[in-house]
Amino acid sequence: MSRRDEEIRRLPDWKVPLTIWWDEKENVVKMVDQTLLPDEVRVIQCENWRCIEEAISVLRIRGAPALGAAGAYALALEAQRFEGDEEGFFGKMDETKEIMKIRPTAVNLEWGVTRVLNMLEKNRGSGVGKLRDIALQEAERIMEEDIEANKMIGKHGLEIFERRKPKDGNTFKILTHCHAGSLATGGYGTALGVIRTAFKALKEKDITLHVYADETRPLLQGARITAWELKLESIPVTLITDNSAGWIMKKEDIDMVIVGADRIAANGDTTNKIGTYSLSILAKAHSIPFYVAAPRSTIDQKSETGDDIVIEPRDYREVTHVQCLRIAPHLDKDHVKNYAFDITPHSNITGIITEVGIIREPYIENMRELLEN
Amino acid sequence: MSRRDEEIRRLPDWKVPLTIWWDEKENVVKMVDQTLLPDEVRVIQCENWRCIEEAISVLRIRGAPALGAAGAYALALEAQRFEGDEEGFFGKMDETKEIMKIRPTAVNLEWGVTRVLNMLEKNRGSGVGKLRDIALQEAERIMEEDIEANKMIGKHGLEIFERRKPKDGNTFKILTHCHAGSLATGGYGTALGVIRTAFKALKEKDITLHVYADETRPLLQGARITAWELKLESIPVTLITDNSAGWIMKKEDIDMVIVGADRIAANGDTTNKIGTYSLSILAKAHSIPFYVAAPRSTIDQKSETGDDIVIEPRDYREVTHVQCLRIAPHLDKDHVKNYAFDITPHSNITGIITEVGIIREPYIENMRELLEN
Repeated sequence: MSRRDEEIRRLPDWKVPLTIWWDEKENVVKMVDQTLLPDEVRVIQCENWRCIEEAISVLRIRGAPALGAAGAYALALEAQRFEGDEEGFFGKMDETKEIMKIRPTAVNLEWGVTRVLNMLEKNRGSGVGKLRDIALQEAERIMEEDIEANKMIGKHGLEIFERRKPKDGNTFKILTHCHAGSLATGGYGTALGVIRTAFKALKEKDITLHVYADETRPLLQGARITAWELKLESIPVTLITDNSAGWIMKKEDIDMVIVGADRIAANGDTTNKIGTYSLSILAKAHSIPFYVAAPRSTIDQKSETGDDIVIEPRDYREVTHVQCLRIAPHLDKDHVKNYAFDITPHSNITGIITEVGIIREPYIENMRELLEN
Repeated sequence: MSRRDEEIRRLPDWKVPLTIWWDEKENVVKMVDQTLLPDEVRVIQCENWRCIEEAISVLRIRGAPALGAAGAYALALEAQRFEGDEEGFFGKMDETKEIMKIRPTAVNLEWGVTRVLNMLEKNRGSGVGKLRDIALQEAERIMEEDIEANKMIGKHGLEIFERRKPKDGNTFKILTHCHAGSLATGGYGTALGVIRTAFKALKEKDITLHVYADETRPLLQGARITAWELKLESIPVTLITDNSAGWIMKKEDIDMVIVGADRIAANGDTTNKIGTYSLSILAKAHSIPFYVAAPRSTIDQKSETGDDIVIEPRDYREVTHVQCLRIAPHLDKDHVKNYAFDITPHSNITGIITEVGIIREPYIENMRELLEN
C-alpha cells in the first residue's frame, strides 16, 4: 500500500473514499481533492478554516450535504487548535462562520455551521476544553447522520421502482445529472444512494439498473465523479453530453430521472446544478418521472419559493476553459454567462425522496408536516 | 502580412476566411482547418481526395453546406490532376465518389458529389480536358450558389423580426446551437446568415441583436467557431454551456432560437447537431419560436420523415476527451453514447428559412411546392 493509499480513508466495505474527516493524529481536517478526480485520488489537509474555505470555493469539496459537513469541520478544526479563553474561543467561532458565505446557494453549508454554533452556544460557560470536544463531536455527528439519512433515502427510494416495470425488459434506465453520490455527501449519496440501494435490492428480482450520467459542464462532475463512482461500484453507467439528454430520453427508453438538490424551498421548488431545470422540462415532455433525492437538511423553510433563492454566479473561466485547457481564448467575462445553478419548479417534480419518505404534491402542506414531525 | 495571412483567402470586405477553395497556382484544394479554431487559422492543402476525406472525417471541414462544396471539390481536384483517357477519368470519379459515405447524415455531401458527377455524365465524350474544366466549374458554382443562397436566406429571414418587438427593450435575443455560420457553408452562413443580415438591417430602426451561443459539446463548435465568427463581425455574443439553455430562455428573455440543419425530411423533420431536439422542446415550453435556416440542398425528399434518416454515431473519445485533454480516462467505448445528431420533429419547428422563402406547416405540401418551382 502506497503512502497515498494509506491516507485515503474508507468506511468498511466501501470502495469510494470518505469525503472529509478529522485526523486526530495530525490535528487536521483531511478531504479528497475532487477537482483532481478521477485522474488522482489526492488527500489534502487543512490546518485552518481559510484552507477549507479555499477548498469549498474552488470545489475541491462540493455537493450540498458535503458542504454542510465541511462548514461544521471548519469550526471543529479551529476549535481544536484554539488556545485561549472562552471569549476568545467564541470570537474565533464568529470569525470562522464567515465560511458559510462562500457558496450562497447550497443551504447545507449554512445549516452545518449554524448547527455547530448553536450547540456551542448552548454550552457557553463549559470551558474551552469541553467546547473543543463539543464542536468536533457535532461535526462528526453531522457526517454520521448524513450517511444514515442517505441510507434511509435509498430505502424510501425503493418505492419508486415498485408497481412499475422497466420499459426495456429487465433494466431500469435512470438518467442523472451532476454528482449526488458518496463524495457529494457525508457518504453513500442522495440520488446515487437511491441507485445504490435499488441496484442491490432489485438484483433478487433479476432486475438491474443502468445509469445515464450527464457529463455536466462546466466542471464535468458527471463525467469525472458520477461515472467513476458508479464504475467503482460495478453499477452499469453510460456517459453522455448534457445536450443529448433529450434525445437519449427518447431513443434509449429512459425510465426516470433522479437528481440531488442544493436547496429546496418550502413549496418544493428545487435549486440544483445548472441543467436540472432543462432536464425537468425534457422529462415532462417525454412523460418520464422526475425525482429529487435530498436529506431534510437541504429543505429551507425560509425560502417560500424558488424566487427567494440566490443563484451563485461563478467565474466565466469555468466556461471558457476545461480544466487547464482554454477552449474559447477569444472571450472574456463580458462574453459569458455562467449560472452555477437553476431552479426547477415543483410542478415539474414527481417526488422528493427524503430520509423520512417521499414528499409529493401538495408540497407546501406535505413539507411542513414532514419537518414538524 | 505574414506568410500565414497570405494563405488565408477572404471575399472582399469579409472578416471570416473562406471555407474551401481551389488554388490554381498550386493545383490543390485549400481549406481552413476548423479543428484548430479559434487558436489558429491554419490553411491546409489537399493534393488528392483522400486528404479531403480525412479532413471531413475529423471535422477539419464541417457544416452540411460546406460538406457539399468539399465533396464537389474532391471530384474537381482529382479531375484536375488526372492524366489518362476518358474511361480512366470516369473510373477515377467513381473511386472518388466514395467520399460521400464518410459522413452519412448531412445530405449535402452526397448532393454536391452527385451534382458534379451528373454534370460530367452529361458531358461524357467531350474529352478529359473539357471534363476537367467542367468538374472545377461545377464545384466553384456550388460554392457561389451557396453563398448566394445564404444571402437570400438572410433576406427572407428578416420576416421573422417583423411584426414583433424584442422582449427586452430594443435587443432581440437569439439562441443558437453549434455553428451554422460562414465556415459551415460556402460562406455567409445559414442561421448566422439570418443573424448577420438582421443585425445590419435592424440597425436603422435602432434595434440590435444579441446572440447566445451554446458551446455545443462534444466538439465545441459553438464556443470555438460561432462565438469567434460573431466577435469578428462585432455582433454581440454570450457563450453558455449547453445545459443552461433552458434556464437562459427563462431568465434572459430569449426571443427566438435559430439553428442550421444537416438534413431535412420531406415532412420537415430536421436533423441537426445533437442538442437541437432538446432545444426545440425547451423553446416550445417557453413559447419561443424555433427556426431552422437551410438552403434547399439540405432538403432530402427521399427521406419521408425523420425516421428515414441515418444518425451518424461518432467516436466515444469525443466525449471522454476535450481536444487533447482526457476528462474521463476511466471510461471506454462501452461506457459512452455519442450521437452526433438528433432529429427535431416538424411539429416543434416554427418555420424553415430557405433561399426562396420561409416554409411553415403543412410542411409536406409547402415543401413539395417549393422544390417543384
